[in-house]
Amino acid sequence: MNAAAPGAQPLAEAVREQMYARDHAARALGITVEAIGPGFARCRMAVRQDMVNGHATCHGGLTFTLADAAFAYACNACNRATVAQGAQISFIAPARLGDVLIASAREQSRAGRIGIYDVEVAKEDGTVVALFRGTSYETRDAVIAAGRSGAEA
Amino acid sequence: MNAAAPGAQPLAEAVREQMYARDHAARALGITVEAIGPGFARCRMAVRQDMVNGHATCHGGLTFTLADAAFAYACNACNRATVAQGAQISFIAPARLGDVLIASAREQSRAGRIGIYDVEVAKEDGTVVALFRGTSYETRDAVIAAGRSGAEA
Amino acid sequence: MNAAAPGAQPLAEAVREQMYARDHAARALGITVEAIGPGFARCRMAVRQDMVNGHATCHGGLTFTLADAAFAYACNACNRATVAQGAQISFIAPARLGDVLIASAREQSRAGRIGIYDVEVAKEDGTVVALFRGTSYETRDAVIAAGRSGAEA
Amino acid sequence: MNAAAPGAQPLAEAVREQMYARDHAARALGITVEAIGPGFARCRMAVRQDMVNGHATCHGGLTFTLADAAFAYACNACNRATVAQGAQISFIAPARLGDVLIASAREQSRAGRIGIYDVEVAKEDGTVVALFRGTSYETRDAVIAAGRSGAEA
Repeated sequence: MNAAAPGAQPLAEAVREQMYARDHAARALGITVEAIGPGFARCRMAVRQDMVNGHATCHGGLTFTLADAAFAYACNACNRATVAQGAQISFIAPARLGDVLIASAREQSRAGRIGIYDVEVAKEDGTVVALFRGTSYETRDAVIAAGRSGAEA
Repeated sequence: MNAAAPGAQPLAEAVREQMYARDHAARALGITVEAIGPGFARCRMAVRQDMVNGHATCHGGLTFTLADAAFAYACNACNRATVAQGAQISFIAPARLGDVLIASAREQSRAGRIGIYDVEVAKEDGTVVALFRGTSYETRDAVIAAGRSGAEA
Repeated sequence: MNAAAPGAQPLAEAVREQMYARDHAARALGITVEAIGPGFARCRMAVRQDMVNGHATCHGGLTFTLADAAFAYACNACNRATVAQGAQISFIAPARLGDVLIASAREQSRAGRIGIYDVEVAKEDGTVVALFRGTSYETRDAVIAAGRSGAEA
Repeated sequence: MNAAAPGAQPLAEAVREQMYARDHAARALGITVEAIGPGFARCRMAVRQDMVNGHATCHGGLTFTLADAAFAYACNACNRATVAQGAQISFIAPARLGDVLIASAREQSRAGRIGIYDVEVAKEDGTVVALFRGTSYETRDAVIAAGRSGAEA
């Protein structure tokens, strides 16, 4: 992550745009990517009726999905196509129908092809719902082909 | 887990029925619980268009959700209401649009109020897609109130 | 964690003193607990010849042990006897013979009997060697019996 | 892992011999590698006085170290030098002074440069003490240089 590199911010925004256009899962769940930057992303999701389980709380899998989405946008933001190797999540407090959840992902480390990202999922009032730590693996591809980036257009 | 306890199997089936009736998230994702027993559950999900991401592969969050569902049914099957404390997932191979995924959860340990469950997510041809390990925490409640269990009816 | 509670800091120091007196493993490895407070601990260990492996780097298990020690002191600092349920570690950079490692543990969450603690292990020059996240479980005991705490003396 | 490859077993044994000769940490802790094969290793450690903590139980870090050792021997057994990226451990039952612990590591997956290994740590009576899952990353080196392997001598 090099937050200061010229062009890094518009490149991150162009990557988000291109990823989101193809991200059927995020759109179907109403996940939005409300902020992005090099090594950083913040996503938002409202807990809907079709996301709750028998305890009337948000299914842990969907809380994970929101965190995983923020992780994916953060680790691809520098336009090196990167996939999740794995992740760990700790559930701290339940989220309920109607709650709006915000997942903030930050790069903790990126060395060689491997990165570590921490994501906090919280309600709008700041209550922490879950902590997530993902490990990424960089492929040899770019997300956006050279010369086609919105950042360079 | 006591697979041999008389009534354990019909109780597990009654718990599944009652949990599934309230499990909006599983139903919305087309997840079915095709087998259950004490400390065991097997769930199934077909990868739909609204589950794929920019790489045309199943969103990792939804693979996690399937595994988490199998974990939840397995750890509640003995009618002690149990929640997920946390989980770890390793992604091994991508799942694609149209693949049918099968998640098999098995109890590895249950000591005091804490349990460990392993879940393997595989395609129908046996290709392993992900390995998941969840940690559960037992509440003091039952899933089905005494006297109302299908097992006891 | 309530950093502001009167007596919390001397209580944490008394807990450290009593735990350390019985902590044969930490002493054998030359681990010291150089700072403690409510929900916080910092430990130090020099990498010795008997800690390195075939790659001439500190055995990952001993890096983990240092992090786990910081976690243990942090999660017991409020004098509620607390044990590790589990932990996850990501190895980021190797530590070598002669390096001095510093593990800083901080409470991220404590709800009911379960806590989440993050530990960063770094060299003296700030290079991050590993990130660790531990989950704790509170027993019903105290570390120091009432009336015998240095904090209350 | 290809258990059937001719020469795989003697190669695994030669790798173990060479790794162990340089493994100061394992030797200092009295860890032995009592069985090895392609994708498999079993290590043993007796809990000594200098391994216990304030609860008179084996320090979790040393239980982890034993598991991590078994993981390391298992993932290097095919003579592709492989390092730990990270690991997760769940502590299930305490080990006490004098207990002999046995860690059995098995490869669950190896795809590209990344592997997943499960390790069970148990007492001699079969009581499970901990479950460990490690993620490995293959470097481009060999453990034993070609032509110098005991397997090929």
